[in-house]
Amino acid sequence: MTKRNDAPSNPDRRKLITSAAAVLSVAALQTPTAEAKSKSGGTQTGSVDVIVVGAGLSGLTSARELVKKGKSVVVLEARDRVGGRTWTTAVGARRYDLGGQFVGPTQDRIRAMAKEFGLEIKPVFSDAKHIWELGDERVEFEGSVPALSLLQKLDLGHIINKMNALAKRVGPTTPWAVSDAAELDAITLAQWVKENSYKKSSRDFAKVMTRAVLGVDPDEISVLLWSYYVAQGDNIEMLIGGRGGAQDSVIEGGSQQLSLRMAKDLGAAVKLSQPVRRVMHDAAGVTVETDHGNWRGRYVVMAIPPAMNTAITFTPSLTGDRRDLETRAPMGRYAKVVITYEKPFWRELGYAGDVGSLRGPVVASYDDSSNEGPALLGFVGGDDERLWRKLSAPARKAAVLECFARWFGSEALKPLAYEEKDWTVDEWTFGGPTIALPPGVLSRYGAALRQPIGRIHWAGTEAAQRWTGYMDGAIRAGEQAAADLLTRLTK
Amino acid sequence: MTKRNDAPSNPDRRKLITSAAAVLSVAALQTPTAEAKSKSGGTQTGSVDVIVVGAGLSGLTSARELVKKGKSVVVLEARDRVGGRTWTTAVGARRYDLGGQFVGPTQDRIRAMAKEFGLEIKPVFSDAKHIWELGDERVEFEGSVPALSLLQKLDLGHIINKMNALAKRVGPTTPWAVSDAAELDAITLAQWVKENSYKKSSRDFAKVMTRAVLGVDPDEISVLLWSYYVAQGDNIEMLIGGRGGAQDSVIEGGSQQLSLRMAKDLGAAVKLSQPVRRVMHDAAGVTVETDHGNWRGRYVVMAIPPAMNTAITFTPSLTGDRRDLETRAPMGRYAKVVITYEKPFWRELGYAGDVGSLRGPVVASYDDSSNEGPALLGFVGGDDERLWRKLSAPARKAAVLECFARWFGSEALKPLAYEEKDWTVDEWTFGGPTIALPPGVLSRYGAALRQPIGRIHWAGTEAAQRWTGYMDGAIRAGEQAAADLLTRLTK
Repeated sequence: MTKRNDAPSNPDRRKLITSAAAVLSVAALQTPTAEAKSKSGGTQTGSVDVIVVGAGLSGLTSARELVKKGKSVVVLEARDRVGGRTWTTAVGARRYDLGGQFVGPTQDRIRAMAKEFGLEIKPVFSDAKHIWELGDERVEFEGSVPALSLLQKLDLGHIINKMNALAKRVGPTTPWAVSDAAELDAITLAQWVKENSYKKSSRDFAKVMTRAVLGVDPDEISVLLWSYYVAQGDNIEMLIGGRGGAQDSVIEGGSQQLSLRMAKDLGAAVKLSQPVRRVMHDAAGVTVETDHGNWRGRYVVMAIPPAMNTAITFTPSLTGDRRDLETRAPMGRYAKVVITYEKPFWRELGYAGDVGSLRGPVVASYDDSSNEGPALLGFVGGDDERLWRKLSAPARKAAVLECFARWFGSEALKPLAYEEKDWTVDEWTFGGPTIALPPGVLSRYGAALRQPIGRIHWAGTEAAQRWTGYMDGAIRAGEQAAADLLTRLTK
Repeated sequence: MTKRNDAPSNPDRRKLITSAAAVLSVAALQTPTAEAKSKSGGTQTGSVDVIVVGAGLSGLTSARELVKKGKSVVVLEARDRVGGRTWTTAVGARRYDLGGQFVGPTQDRIRAMAKEFGLEIKPVFSDAKHIWELGDERVEFEGSVPALSLLQKLDLGHIINKMNALAKRVGPTTPWAVSDAAELDAITLAQWVKENSYKKSSRDFAKVMTRAVLGVDPDEISVLLWSYYVAQGDNIEMLIGGRGGAQDSVIEGGSQQLSLRMAKDLGAAVKLSQPVRRVMHDAAGVTVETDHGNWRGRYVVMAIPPAMNTAITFTPSLTGDRRDLETRAPMGRYAKVVITYEKPFWRELGYAGDVGSLRGPVVASYDDSSNEGPALLGFVGGDDERLWRKLSAPARKAAVLECFARWFGSEALKPLAYEEKDWTVDEWTFGGPTIALPPGVLSRYGAALRQPIGRIHWAGTEAAQRWTGYMDGAIRAGEQAAADLLTRLTK
């Protein structure tokens, strides 16, 4: 069974879920509320301090922070569920994350939120052999920081160090302001790697890295964008790392719980299945139109990916740098697969379950076992996603399972359940995990990621000043938008 | 007076027009028809063979070719006028083109259409001194092919020849199919020029060239895209050339006449002020929704810039390569200014009126005199447009006039009228003259420019196999879409 849209593919299976009471208590937020349904086609208006567009982690965080300070909000969401690019759903009889999942060190904001909600952040199983596959070469190794020993073997130390140094210089906040921003933005990462490495293995490594981290190939992004992205997440070892890195831990019970809990607290303020069609804004306020009615607010927070704004009519038109940015901010090509098993057979063979590979289609895998049971997950990113998505559903599944069988033996071919979610063909994101800017964009338009336009503020992980592209960045950007608005609302 | 939107800024002045009876006879097509107005908010439905979205040159050409063969069509246009990126309008008491205007050699299709409508194609005044300004250096020269002698002086011959050779090898039709497409698409034109030239003047020249031709700077596009664009227009001398080049001639009375005449012939089939909001498509047919009702057709032709499709809801979603393309296909930053004068004083000083300059904001100018009277025109493109558009209206005008005064003396500061049209901030195109693809896009997604998706066909100059980005390409793409549909409709 494959899962191309994000409607639960087998609602019956959800009845089997017993381990996550917290999730069940807010399960109603997964499907259209009775209220939203009854209003369908009607006119549902209201006036609030702030209208939030998008009920992902970022939009909900904004709304929550504003409500905490006594402001009135409405959150308008196109999907029939909250959570945006996070989505915890049925994989066979169990529940796993088919969207954003990992929590790493220095991701303080998501850790704080999980703690507040009493959710457990649990390290990914990692204390066993890791695998890297570049071309036909397979390297197995142990250690809590897999990158380091491998990098030495592959002679990648030089280029990694050089990239980290560049990232440090560019910094996480205003990369467009460094003196050579234009030069760094005029060259693709592919070209930079070619000029700064002598071995094919280095170029292969770069491809695994960007496919796994951003869902693109190195020829699609600028060196400035990559440096900024690395700086936002500290360094390359952190971005690609399992244990000790950005893939260190997960939220037991699933990442979507954060959004579900926030939405539950916000109650009727969250409106599902209401795609925003138009945003009218002037000095007096903002009117937001959905298919079900108009909302009036003093301000609006757009908490959706930049490119999604082009699907909304802004009156007056959203022109200038922001619109230029939005037409130049493609998302990565990114899919996730989760496969459940009776037993964690890979552990029995001495493997941690994490792999980095260029043989395709799965570019990176991890052990995804939780209280729900043993599982593996994989990412399909960049050009491999593009090839893979053109296959039939059975062929896609077979191609994925073949990867795991190559790595961990034929036991991998006998899963309990298999699910996939290709965010690239999701009509509400156009891809994932985040924007991947080509040359020429960040140096010119970076500031437009965060700069409000009149009464329009920007959230979404793309607006973050730390951990952009990650769940932590989504929360940070949501908090920032709320803080900015609280300043304006109290004036 | 400035013109930021494309509503005529002074309707009274239009009454003064006497020289273009053909234009006047269809002037009603410049503003909402009574029919469209009366239907506003109502439901206006119909069933046709083909629904055409966009009443620019390309969409109207498609509709016209289909009607010629007895097919029924409706053309849905968001603007309150036809013509798309062509627009002939009042500049003071006269009429000039504030959009696409020039016709060059080998542009057979637009020449044929102009001839059919009895319109005169008139060479631009050119038999006098030309000016190039790179940095502080000003070069004046004569000759019908200005590029050649200048290129020798500036030692640009080598890089121009190399680019032409590359364009010839890449070709105009399927650039993504050449063996090194990925490599050519992995490097920006800026980087390529840097690696293939030794003088700053070459890099400056490249900047003038891309700003004038595509409205972008060389760091924003890939070498593959540029090679393809050059191949579509034969060679670089042709693209940048005045007399004998792509800027050889103009249509007396204005380019919009072509669209106005086609629209007149199509009559009530052309619906203005009806932005398309949704396209529903399946094996049985297509339903297109506007604010004023639904249209049912057997096929649809989308004749709008690729990025504009993201503003339309496709059901089922437009996913895959086409959507990937659309989120990666920014338009150039492009504005046009027209300035009318009592006398062509530049000619009296021995100048042709054409200039290429990097001093900004005007990157290229031409003599724009017609039967209407003496005039000059200028393009503001690439990063200069971005700086210029942030100025106040009076400051923008002053900055433009200052360029012409620097080139042709203080007489330039005393115009009869000044008009500007910044296509970059136009809500129905997001820029101009056409798409300018960054690295990584054309090699992957080029085929999606033309490949139909079910019952959806693509027109617009971006789909052309010759002269993409030009009016001629718009007509070619329109003809191609009609030919493809006629084959399908007669099956």
